[in-house]
Amino acid sequence: MTDLGTPDRRAAALAALAEQTIELPSWAFGNSGTRFKVFGQPGVARDPFEKIEDAAVVHRHTGAAPRVSLHIPWDLVDDFSKLAAHAADLGVSIGAINSNLFQDDDYRLGSLTHPDKAVRDKAIAHHAQCVDVMRATGSTDLKLWLPDGTNYAGQDDLRGRQDRLADSLQQVYALLDPGHRLLLEYKFYEPYFYAMDIPDWGTSLLHCLALGDRATVVLDTGHHAPGTNIEFIVMQLLRVGRLGAFDFNSRYYGDDDLIVGSADPFQLFRIMNEIVAADALRPESQVNFMLDQCHNIEPKIPGQIRSVMNVQEATAKALLVDREALAAAQSSGDVLAAHGALTDAFSTDVRPLLAELRESKGLAADPYAAYARSGHQERIARERIGGTQASWGA
Amino acid sequence: MTDLGTPDRRAAALAALAEQTIELPSWAFGNSGTRFKVFGQPGVARDPFEKIEDAAVVHRHTGAAPRVSLHIPWDLVDDFSKLAAHAADLGVSIGAINSNLFQDDDYRLGSLTHPDKAVRDKAIAHHAQCVDVMRATGSTDLKLWLPDGTNYAGQDDLRGRQDRLADSLQQVYALLDPGHRLLLEYKFYEPYFYAMDIPDWGTSLLHCLALGDRATVVLDTGHHAPGTNIEFIVMQLLRVGRLGAFDFNSRYYGDDDLIVGSADPFQLFRIMNEIVAADALRPESQVNFMLDQCHNIEPKIPGQIRSVMNVQEATAKALLVDREALAAAQSSGDVLAAHGALTDAFSTDVRPLLAELRESKGLAADPYAAYARSGHQERIARERIGGTQASWGA
Amino acid sequence: MTDLGTPDRRAAALAALAEQTIELPSWAFGNSGTRFKVFGQPGVARDPFEKIEDAAVVHRHTGAAPRVSLHIPWDLVDDFSKLAAHAADLGVSIGAINSNLFQDDDYRLGSLTHPDKAVRDKAIAHHAQCVDVMRATGSTDLKLWLPDGTNYAGQDDLRGRQDRLADSLQQVYALLDPGHRLLLEYKFYEPYFYAMDIPDWGTSLLHCLALGDRATVVLDTGHHAPGTNIEFIVMQLLRVGRLGAFDFNSRYYGDDDLIVGSADPFQLFRIMNEIVAADALRPESQVNFMLDQCHNIEPKIPGQIRSVMNVQEATAKALLVDREALAAAQSSGDVLAAHGALTDAFSTDVRPLLAELRESKGLAADPYAAYARSGHQERIARERIGGTQASWGA
Amino acid sequence: MTDLGTPDRRAAALAALAEQTIELPSWAFGNSGTRFKVFGQPGVARDPFEKIEDAAVVHRHTGAAPRVSLHIPWDLVDDFSKLAAHAADLGVSIGAINSNLFQDDDYRLGSLTHPDKAVRDKAIAHHAQCVDVMRATGSTDLKLWLPDGTNYAGQDDLRGRQDRLADSLQQVYALLDPGHRLLLEYKFYEPYFYAMDIPDWGTSLLHCLALGDRATVVLDTGHHAPGTNIEFIVMQLLRVGRLGAFDFNSRYYGDDDLIVGSADPFQLFRIMNEIVAADALRPESQVNFMLDQCHNIEPKIPGQIRSVMNVQEATAKALLVDREALAAAQSSGDVLAAHGALTDAFSTDVRPLLAELRESKGLAADPYAAYARSGHQERIARERIGGTQASWGA
Repeated sequence: MTDLGTPDRRAAALAALAEQTIELPSWAFGNSGTRFKVFGQPGVARDPFEKIEDAAVVHRHTGAAPRVSLHIPWDLVDDFSKLAAHAADLGVSIGAINSNLFQDDDYRLGSLTHPDKAVRDKAIAHHAQCVDVMRATGSTDLKLWLPDGTNYAGQDDLRGRQDRLADSLQQVYALLDPGHRLLLEYKFYEPYFYAMDIPDWGTSLLHCLALGDRATVVLDTGHHAPGTNIEFIVMQLLRVGRLGAFDFNSRYYGDDDLIVGSADPFQLFRIMNEIVAADALRPESQVNFMLDQCHNIEPKIPGQIRSVMNVQEATAKALLVDREALAAAQSSGDVLAAHGALTDAFSTDVRPLLAELRESKGLAADPYAAYARSGHQERIARERIGGTQASWGA
Repeated sequence: MTDLGTPDRRAAALAALAEQTIELPSWAFGNSGTRFKVFGQPGVARDPFEKIEDAAVVHRHTGAAPRVSLHIPWDLVDDFSKLAAHAADLGVSIGAINSNLFQDDDYRLGSLTHPDKAVRDKAIAHHAQCVDVMRATGSTDLKLWLPDGTNYAGQDDLRGRQDRLADSLQQVYALLDPGHRLLLEYKFYEPYFYAMDIPDWGTSLLHCLALGDRATVVLDTGHHAPGTNIEFIVMQLLRVGRLGAFDFNSRYYGDDDLIVGSADPFQLFRIMNEIVAADALRPESQVNFMLDQCHNIEPKIPGQIRSVMNVQEATAKALLVDREALAAAQSSGDVLAAHGALTDAFSTDVRPLLAELRESKGLAADPYAAYARSGHQERIARERIGGTQASWGA
Repeated sequence: MTDLGTPDRRAAALAALAEQTIELPSWAFGNSGTRFKVFGQPGVARDPFEKIEDAAVVHRHTGAAPRVSLHIPWDLVDDFSKLAAHAADLGVSIGAINSNLFQDDDYRLGSLTHPDKAVRDKAIAHHAQCVDVMRATGSTDLKLWLPDGTNYAGQDDLRGRQDRLADSLQQVYALLDPGHRLLLEYKFYEPYFYAMDIPDWGTSLLHCLALGDRATVVLDTGHHAPGTNIEFIVMQLLRVGRLGAFDFNSRYYGDDDLIVGSADPFQLFRIMNEIVAADALRPESQVNFMLDQCHNIEPKIPGQIRSVMNVQEATAKALLVDREALAAAQSSGDVLAAHGALTDAFSTDVRPLLAELRESKGLAADPYAAYARSGHQERIARERIGGTQASWGA
Repeated sequence: MTDLGTPDRRAAALAALAEQTIELPSWAFGNSGTRFKVFGQPGVARDPFEKIEDAAVVHRHTGAAPRVSLHIPWDLVDDFSKLAAHAADLGVSIGAINSNLFQDDDYRLGSLTHPDKAVRDKAIAHHAQCVDVMRATGSTDLKLWLPDGTNYAGQDDLRGRQDRLADSLQQVYALLDPGHRLLLEYKFYEPYFYAMDIPDWGTSLLHCLALGDRATVVLDTGHHAPGTNIEFIVMQLLRVGRLGAFDFNSRYYGDDDLIVGSADPFQLFRIMNEIVAADALRPESQVNFMLDQCHNIEPKIPGQIRSVMNVQEATAKALLVDREALAAAQSSGDVLAAHGALTDAFSTDVRPLLAELRESKGLAADPYAAYARSGHQERIARERIGGTQASWGA
């Protein structure tokens, strides 16, 4: 660690880490589960205001999570300016607005790709509602995950669905204000099991290129085929200027939505390494680093705190890479030295560095432990009685 | 087809097909979905009696589905002898009794493997209830899918969970009557995403061997890692005399639970070919051929009829394999001729043969079309108003 | 089959099948194997002229394989016009010219992406040689599979490799004559195991778009992650007008290079269904249907004959799809009827139809059996003694 | 690291690490590659004696690799007692003897499973030769990887092959002396692509159980389906007392044979954690920790040194796990705390601890750097001129 910890590199890392922000999803604070069961947990938020409060707690402990993504209609409130003010009072702001195209009975066979124009129109109109929420909350990102697809070969015409999708997306894009972006996510499979209509980054990118400059791709780390090299996609999307956002989470099998970094921390490090190498960590890069996870069996707020910490640790390691040594080994074809330059950074224990960062901001060195000590979890379990807990599925 | 259709082979195939039975799951007649959405469908059954009626309709049209698996507690009724009599009146009988270890709040961290003995005892006691249902309905198969597992490395002790599982299974096995069997299913992943406690056939078999002769393995065709050669496992379990049952369905990705034979009909044929080659199609082989599917977007009864037809077609093809030619090519090392002996049978259109089988039983040649013509679907959509539709998740 | 076999649809299918051509790879007629072992086989070709002869035998029996792809330098001869004339004499012509970027010691760390400009220049220059072969043989397709990649994270800069690749490809593209096309293949993994430089269709397409209109993507059916929906990619590449060619083969696991259609005939049918649906079977579509296989343990010529037959059968089934019924079911949202319209065609035994096609061309109904009867295999085993057999690896 | 670094735990870890041994494969010191190309490297060993010398260099630098596995016939010498003495002179000994069933022309369709008894007898007889080598070298482990399988469905009878395999293995087992063990490896796929005859741990275990107490399973970390939880298998095989050995390497896709720990260091840590938790690190556990890798593009000796270091680091982290805290969190159902107890150890930088270990043995703190400084690589490149380099494939 001696070399990696040169004062200059440490200082630069600390400066970059101080600027890094991670966006939290409101739905992480509601109950979630699998198709088999949603387990309820004590103290879980019962409305969007409480979800914002929970997100603010995460930010208060980590100092790195100042924004909250909303999901419409899960987070519908009568007065969004009030919700935004509530967030501001708590020190956070509203991030991306996520549309929902999978929970209406009309969407059994698709939404933006549905064979029936009436259903497509309904799905398009839903985005007008989302854009209104953006205006009311100051959000600039409309995030669209298309859950459309088919379960059986022949069920629908794959090409026809693409053409309808392109048309629908054009209409959605036309709804945006000049300062707005469209973030278009892809997913390998689920909720459909034969063909998703945007199954891969190539398809998402083709649609973004057709739409215009403000359409970019969302990379959810859990939405790929087994073995896919995700950092390669990160690099490629950065190369063509179309990486709009991450949805961070972990997977061992399918779209498991576990805590980011919990399944393969070396992969997360490699991803952050591509980000750092392309100088895309800076806010001006416009890459939105979002979490998208389900804490099915663990408590929500600690789960989010751990997630933020994991992204920070991976980032810190990426920042500590000795890039001169790395480049020299690469250009000389020294395979093991180049690999070693990367793994040296990964092997470094960056928890002391992050403790230093946090303490410099007046935070506890270990946000997870600090939250546990705070008694907050017990308090919400005690106080949030009555009402209906928010749930990922509703 | 000329060669394959020798009169003797056709006659033998027809005789074997006439004996073949496929067991239907009661839950196929309720609504189902993904974690994102359960779409309701008109006419869906509202109680176990209506599910039995739907299963009986499938049997009436196909002549090949005379049993219905129940799921406890989904199919709990006050008087199971009445339910069994209802089934008998409709020409079907009660098949395997499936226990449910995933929908109780206590099971968040496991059931038969839970760290807390009280929870394990509860899960064991649930099987006593299931055995009572077996006695009341004449069922001989207790089917146990263990949904237990962990989401995070370290969350629990993998070894400790195996030991607790072995102990719990011994207690469950002890509940059985002499004529009862325990069918133990494995699953690669879901609802847990780090480690399932019975993830593969090897683990299931080890527990069955420890339990005794009446414990056998259930092979769900959707519960394997990508690329797994399923017919190899079928062969191996038959070889050691421990293949108790199939849960048939199709998958492209995860545990998709699509209609059996819809994603890879050649694989289904290869599976049935191992069954036929081992002479395990005969009822005395004690292999229970069950469906386990979710008709998320298609109607339930036609979905089950199609599934039964698909299994029949794969079986018919397997029965038409020219086993003398196959064996000769295999023993002489003629790779392409041996492969060709198999694919010749697969390429054969067996629908006429199955039409002949059905007509010989007084059934329509095409059960799917016959059901569509029958007006039954419209009738149940019209009549089953009010009440709560059965749902896979409840 | 009654409905599918309407006279009009059968006639149209026969007409389309009569036009269909499949290109054979010269290397299929040499020995091949795995990293563990290349098994030699009696009668295997010893030089490019004998490979052409073998390909011509396949064409003579099937009537559907009039072109042979060459691989440089494996197929280097002193006088390519003589080789082309030899082919013409035998009734076949030279198809795509494949460059080789993986068998030179200089390419240990890459070819077109190598850190060292001298190596890149050498790899570029190799394509000038290939273009010369194109001119001498009348070939119009330069086919480029990039075997470059890295084995260890950090070994080289992923982004730098893309930029070098883009530059190298521009130089290769500039070598082409106006009537030439560049066909750019992608591959998920192997021979490198951390990151391939063109791992997916998206990356290949991005480079083609940057190059110009005559750069198109090659889809090798064995070059995808597990579970990838290949027909979706076929559809998408056709939609953007960039599907240049197929490399047909089968896989269960990795890039297994088995006989096309032997592992998942339903998948091959779905692929051909997208081709037919987009009217891309016609020669004017400029999609080159090529085989790329390794007959590691089975004899080469029969292996190629079987492969051609398998593609023909999948195509015939796709041509028999009742597209009106399919479209009607799709637009009405009848999931099972739409799926059934596809599977009805797949379940049809098209071997009689193809027998009719062949007999109408004066060929034997079953080319595989006819070849076996011809005594050709025994003759080449007897006559091709001495010399060095061609081998896939050299 | 404070908590983990309690003096007691550090001392215990150092003691365990001081005892740990890793066995090196002789073939890692020969050239290797893919089916596309074997790249030669300067200084590569030319005979078994030089391979032993290279292995001894690895041991001299790491102090943790005192044994070398041989591969027959690759390592055939006239006088094995001389080879063993050569090893002893250099401070190492002969480890497992690996048989080779994949490089004889007779094995195209199998070896121990071949349809022809004469071929099976030949394959069995080869093991008598291996047992002679064991006697001459003092080796106690006969390691058998069965490369047998089929490429096409129907090619051979899956069940028949199992029965022939069982019979052949009985005959091989009968050749062993009382102090000998049979180590039986499984592999998911390659070199055959439809069905391997020992594709999974379940099959290997069934054969071991049939053979007797001295037959145990070899777990090669690269021989599983995507997503397989390997540490679960480690736990299960330890639980039934049949984990005989590891073949360590890394994979992203197939059987990539990369440096262990280079692709997923967290997985390697989880594996070693199961070993430590079961107290199976101790020599008496009889688990043989072997490397099995191919250094296709990197130099061999440094590649092996790095591999040994990676196993040591994963082991050190596993030894630092606070098992009391872990067990307490597990039994109380505190998901995140239990997971955290594991990841705390993984996040720890154990390089200083290992430096301390090495220095206590009089070794350099960083064996990789020490080897680079030693000039040995340059010396062998200079001196090993002439002769034929050893190659993985021959």
